[in-house]
Amino acid sequence: MSDTYRRIVLASRPRGWATVDDFRLEVVDMPPLEDGHVRVRNHFLSLDPYMRGRMNDAKSYAAPQALGETMIGATVGEVVESRDPGFAVGDRVAGYLGWAEYGVSAAGGLTKVGTHPLSAYLGVLGMPGMTAWYGVNKILEPKPGDTLVVSAAAGAVGGVVGQLARRAGARVVGIAGGAEKCRYVTQELGFDACVDYKTAADVKALAGSIRTAAPAGVDAHFENVGGDVLNAVMSLLNPFSRVAICGLISDYNMIPGDIPKSAIRNPGLFLTARCRMQGFIVTDHLELWSEGLRALTAEVASGRMKYRESIANGVESAPAAFIGLLKGENLGKQLVRLKDDG
Amino acid sequence: MSDTYRRIVLASRPRGWATVDDFRLEVVDMPPLEDGHVRVRNHFLSLDPYMRGRMNDAKSYAAPQALGETMIGATVGEVVESRDPGFAVGDRVAGYLGWAEYGVSAAGGLTKVGTHPLSAYLGVLGMPGMTAWYGVNKILEPKPGDTLVVSAAAGAVGGVVGQLARRAGARVVGIAGGAEKCRYVTQELGFDACVDYKTAADVKALAGSIRTAAPAGVDAHFENVGGDVLNAVMSLLNPFSRVAICGLISDYNMIPGDIPKSAIRNPGLFLTARCRMQGFIVTDHLELWSEGLRALTAEVASGRMKYRESIANGVESAPAAFIGLLKGENLGKQLVRLKDDG
Repeated sequence: MSDTYRRIVLASRPRGWATVDDFRLEVVDMPPLEDGHVRVRNHFLSLDPYMRGRMNDAKSYAAPQALGETMIGATVGEVVESRDPGFAVGDRVAGYLGWAEYGVSAAGGLTKVGTHPLSAYLGVLGMPGMTAWYGVNKILEPKPGDTLVVSAAAGAVGGVVGQLARRAGARVVGIAGGAEKCRYVTQELGFDACVDYKTAADVKALAGSIRTAAPAGVDAHFENVGGDVLNAVMSLLNPFSRVAICGLISDYNMIPGDIPKSAIRNPGLFLTARCRMQGFIVTDHLELWSEGLRALTAEVASGRMKYRESIANGVESAPAAFIGLLKGENLGKQLVRLKDDG
Repeated sequence: MSDTYRRIVLASRPRGWATVDDFRLEVVDMPPLEDGHVRVRNHFLSLDPYMRGRMNDAKSYAAPQALGETMIGATVGEVVESRDPGFAVGDRVAGYLGWAEYGVSAAGGLTKVGTHPLSAYLGVLGMPGMTAWYGVNKILEPKPGDTLVVSAAAGAVGGVVGQLARRAGARVVGIAGGAEKCRYVTQELGFDACVDYKTAADVKALAGSIRTAAPAGVDAHFENVGGDVLNAVMSLLNPFSRVAICGLISDYNMIPGDIPKSAIRNPGLFLTARCRMQGFIVTDHLELWSEGLRALTAEVASGRMKYRESIANGVESAPAAFIGLLKGENLGKQLVRLKDDG
């Protein structure tokens, strides 16, 4: 084990779009290990849209990322040194060790993972999968015959949402950017239809395309994106419909003080559709983690649940890969591989 | 009984603000009575904000009001002629006979009412009371210690909302227009505080005033008004808060195509507050009517539930009284008395 490791810290807070210059690569000394703590070599780092919010110095559901500190983030890896009786060298663990090749955590901050590939515990068997499971089963509750729409359908969360909803008997319409993603969503993930939002000139045209794919209207919508997508889908909501707000990535790089693209332009639809819209953060519901993970693991083990990964190599690649994620360049779960044979 | 009666019909569909010229007073012949039907002399007519929506020729949860026909609306009165064995002359009944001195209904469209004053069955013991009861108990579910805000607090629905929420142990903040209404809300209805929205220069000032009255933030909001009120309250929502959208009266007279005043300007609050927002129409939930009416009747019978009425006299006064209601000129339930000794 080297005496040093590499990490990415937040160098500056972006105003509007984040750039690679908001991050800095550092080589730092390996710290000593205290009692009750565990040292992990990270094999994979998860990149997720929520990280953009943490880069702001704004009130939110979580504290902002500190400047000059390791960027936060979920990781999977292998224990290389342990001063806690619960963990041994070689244990495969998930944690929140951030954008770094190595990390140290109190034992309570780590979870031993199962026998699926390590990277799955950052995707379908990790926070994105749980997010999909919670939104579908605890908010949207699709019934057989319902039409469910999900945006960012080719992403880590959206792909699981659609597959879970189809299993529940819903007609599933994905929304994604580009023909390649739409092909993936329908042909590989098995959605009933997919709308390429990039082909729509405006919100009205987008609503028209979704209407064609959802001729009976929309009973449930899982929102990862916001902006025109949210307003277009809202115009198609059926009576007693549900909307789960998981993310509004189209607003994450807005200039503070601007009107968000996701501003809800026709609130009267809450009345005409008697719709229920609910924002959620999956980590508020840790008491359901084992129930959800059991369901997702069964889907993955059976081979029914499909997923893909977009992998960048080396911690130095994380900033560009993260900005690519915010721009929708990834297909499936965006990861950074931190170990050559990871 | 006269051979004719007076009624108000919809003469034209307003574009923007409704005016008295959109209505027409007519004297029409008393129709013959068919088998299974009942003739009622209406003592009181209910005026309600939802009627403005029916005046438009737009898709909504209900069909538009037809031009040249009696304006729709709930009524209470006395049976004057019956060709149905279930009703006898003198029975006190509620129905939807519209803006007219007399009406004929199939027996199934009428309900016999209890022994409280007839007008109460159009207010606290009618649709407005049930609307309040449903929103508070089935959507907002205030817990002891919660702070609940309700707009149009001096209105027929808002006054009941606040009293039911206080009974549930919540701190209740009303929002109303003018000092007289605020006095009524706090001194007569017993709300903990009331904010006069007319004293606030903009949405930020309004949010500041509500924050002063709700120093622990807002856990539940019952929205009758929309516009700046909705956006101001949303900025104060606590985690896991609930918002019931009952009405958005500030948008009801908008020019079609304009951006509604109630457009939700900061949808990111759905995430930071993990808020649940739900639109509802009480008549979707008729299966709960007897449960709600029992609860409301107990409150009224005990004398705990306070309410007031604003009464206009004569069917010819309905259009101006209705426009006054849309402008917030009423205190409590807006009624039209159709019988001198009603």
